[in-house]
Amino acid sequence: MAVGLQEPKSLLPVAGFSLAAGASGLRANNDLVIMHFPEGSRVCALFTQSSFVAAPVDVARRHLQSRAPRALCINAGNANAGTGQSGHEDALILCSKVAQLLGIETTEVLPFSTGVIGERLAVQTLSDGLEQLPEQLSEHGWLAAAKAIMTTDTLAKGISRKFIFQGQERVITGIAKGSGMMCPDMATLLAFMATDAPVAEDCLQDILADAVRVSFNRITVDGDTSTNDACVLTSTGQSIQPLVPGSDDWQALSEAVKEVALHLAQSIVRDGEGATHFINVQIEAGRTEDECLQLAYTLAHSPLVKTAAFGNDPNWGRLLMAIGRAGITNLDTSRISIFLDDVCVFTEDKVAASYTEAAGASVMAQDDLTIRVILGRGSETATVWTCDLSYDYVKINADYRT
Amino acid sequence: MAVGLQEPKSLLPVAGFSLAAGASGLRANNDLVIMHFPEGSRVCALFTQSSFVAAPVDVARRHLQSRAPRALCINAGNANAGTGQSGHEDALILCSKVAQLLGIETTEVLPFSTGVIGERLAVQTLSDGLEQLPEQLSEHGWLAAAKAIMTTDTLAKGISRKFIFQGQERVITGIAKGSGMMCPDMATLLAFMATDAPVAEDCLQDILADAVRVSFNRITVDGDTSTNDACVLTSTGQSIQPLVPGSDDWQALSEAVKEVALHLAQSIVRDGEGATHFINVQIEAGRTEDECLQLAYTLAHSPLVKTAAFGNDPNWGRLLMAIGRAGITNLDTSRISIFLDDVCVFTEDKVAASYTEAAGASVMAQDDLTIRVILGRGSETATVWTCDLSYDYVKINADYRT
Repeated sequence: MAVGLQEPKSLLPVAGFSLAAGASGLRANNDLVIMHFPEGSRVCALFTQSSFVAAPVDVARRHLQSRAPRALCINAGNANAGTGQSGHEDALILCSKVAQLLGIETTEVLPFSTGVIGERLAVQTLSDGLEQLPEQLSEHGWLAAAKAIMTTDTLAKGISRKFIFQGQERVITGIAKGSGMMCPDMATLLAFMATDAPVAEDCLQDILADAVRVSFNRITVDGDTSTNDACVLTSTGQSIQPLVPGSDDWQALSEAVKEVALHLAQSIVRDGEGATHFINVQIEAGRTEDECLQLAYTLAHSPLVKTAAFGNDPNWGRLLMAIGRAGITNLDTSRISIFLDDVCVFTEDKVAASYTEAAGASVMAQDDLTIRVILGRGSETATVWTCDLSYDYVKINADYRT
Repeated sequence: MAVGLQEPKSLLPVAGFSLAAGASGLRANNDLVIMHFPEGSRVCALFTQSSFVAAPVDVARRHLQSRAPRALCINAGNANAGTGQSGHEDALILCSKVAQLLGIETTEVLPFSTGVIGERLAVQTLSDGLEQLPEQLSEHGWLAAAKAIMTTDTLAKGISRKFIFQGQERVITGIAKGSGMMCPDMATLLAFMATDAPVAEDCLQDILADAVRVSFNRITVDGDTSTNDACVLTSTGQSIQPLVPGSDDWQALSEAVKEVALHLAQSIVRDGEGATHFINVQIEAGRTEDECLQLAYTLAHSPLVKTAAFGNDPNWGRLLMAIGRAGITNLDTSRISIFLDDVCVFTEDKVAASYTEAAGASVMAQDDLTIRVILGRGSETATVWTCDLSYDYVKINADYRT
């Protein structure tokens, strides 16, 4: 079902970063993952902006503030959200179990959960399930981990890249899960990236924030945002050498993180619930990046635009409609041009003279396509990525309890 | 398919206001309507807030400014939107034809169009079709008109009410069309209301604006807003007596208009594309009406909330998710309570002790249901009305060219 996406065949190990996946027995497949890394590793993370924050997110934030993490613990199938004080206790019980198994402190473990909201964790079963994991920890465990964190995903998502950092070849590998409840501000996604590039100081957080802004925060499946989203970047390399922002090394690391984050983010859209098309929504010549984003999201969230895409219908009337309602002030419609890929559809307030329905339909029939709107009132741009709205989206979400 | 809605069996005539419906031959059913009313009638209207305004909306606005209208002309099937200067000319040709047939001025006719965006009107065919209409003008033409303006509607929508005004019984009758591309700020709806209550002055516009604010601007099917929305209120009564705002007569008229507008607005949601549930989203104890509306619309637009409703699933995790992402600042989640009808689902940051899945499921299985969120931080409230998101919504919009 995923649009133009295949499971990675293999993922490169990151020196020092080991992973293990296992099954608690609560579902048919693996549903537990631990990730373990050496003392001196740097870990930074970004979390959901939701007002309703799941217990594990709350616990992870507090643990991150108190000391440098040594391990991550993830369960899939139950989000441990909307579970009140008991949910916090359950998350701590799992952290404590992992700590005990690995010989580290409870506060050195960050917990992550994804799945159904509002049910207590089967904490004893999960805790028992964790016991088998330490012996399986391996730097080659990425792909198994990517599979174990899936919920409605149809494919495991991951990527590795090599880059040159301080004159040496380094690796970054990332995995992610998520396919519904997706929107900017982190969506229902869990993403874990790690690199062996040694980074001594806080600029890892800046590099992550920069990368997330133009990747995970530019995708939407259905405009809905979850209670559990998190994106974690770990550097296992030991370094005391400061990294200078803007330097070649900074640039190399920053680009590698962006590339991995963008691939993972787009993979999530390609595997969007029920997706049959991958759509670039590209806004150009706006006055501000914000107005470009506002318009891009209005198009990307419009059920009428998304169902037209599902129907392979070059229904540019719905594009007009969505542009018209995007709330952009003083929009001069006579300066707007609309393209489907390179096909000019609408310009100077009417259908383009060169436009044919056949040309539009042929773009809409593609798996990957671009809706491009040129506003003609400035030089700013923005792109977001989304998918169409299909029968299967409705089926998945009318039947599945998230 | 419509939820708890039947076609009106009959609609009361409004003295002086006559209607005729006919077929141009462009589709199987009637697609043309004219409405005619005597000199001295007062007409006021509200139009779409879209930046892309359809040609007939533009023309209607200009005609309204230039003189008191004597007739309305409506075609269904083609919205005459995104059609540039030619679209304006086409709208004027139809106005001119109606004017000629009725012996009035072109600027005394307001044009309305609904249907496919981006195609030129078959103006000659429509013009020819109009010729049969004048002889059929009748005060009893409301129901036929309600049927002729339908597009994806499955039922004609209309209502009549009687009220006492200046000691005398008066009538208000209204009809409307619309079922997709529906959102606040007028949506894809055309609504025509008329009363024989004599109203001399500008307060008719205030009364209409007041009524629309709490009716048509509180409904959403899919969050999408059209290029052609219009709501018109005509008073055929002749009066030179000023109506005092707040007086009993003012109150009586205002309530009658609100009642008719609310019925029409809710009818549109009940006949929402693919709708199987009619959902009241009711927010209470907010700080401001605006934040209540913001939350209500976040819930009403959430594809995950709407698909859960379609699946009869009391999936309150998705309600948490939507509340969490609504962007309400400093939300203290521990003060929030969530109800499905009278069933308390969530309170004090966890599932309510008394809640059972069976109780929740029984509410969700109803045709009409209420999602009620008590924010516990003020005394403001807001209610919006929406429907669920079903296979049929996708089917209708993947197949139908709007």
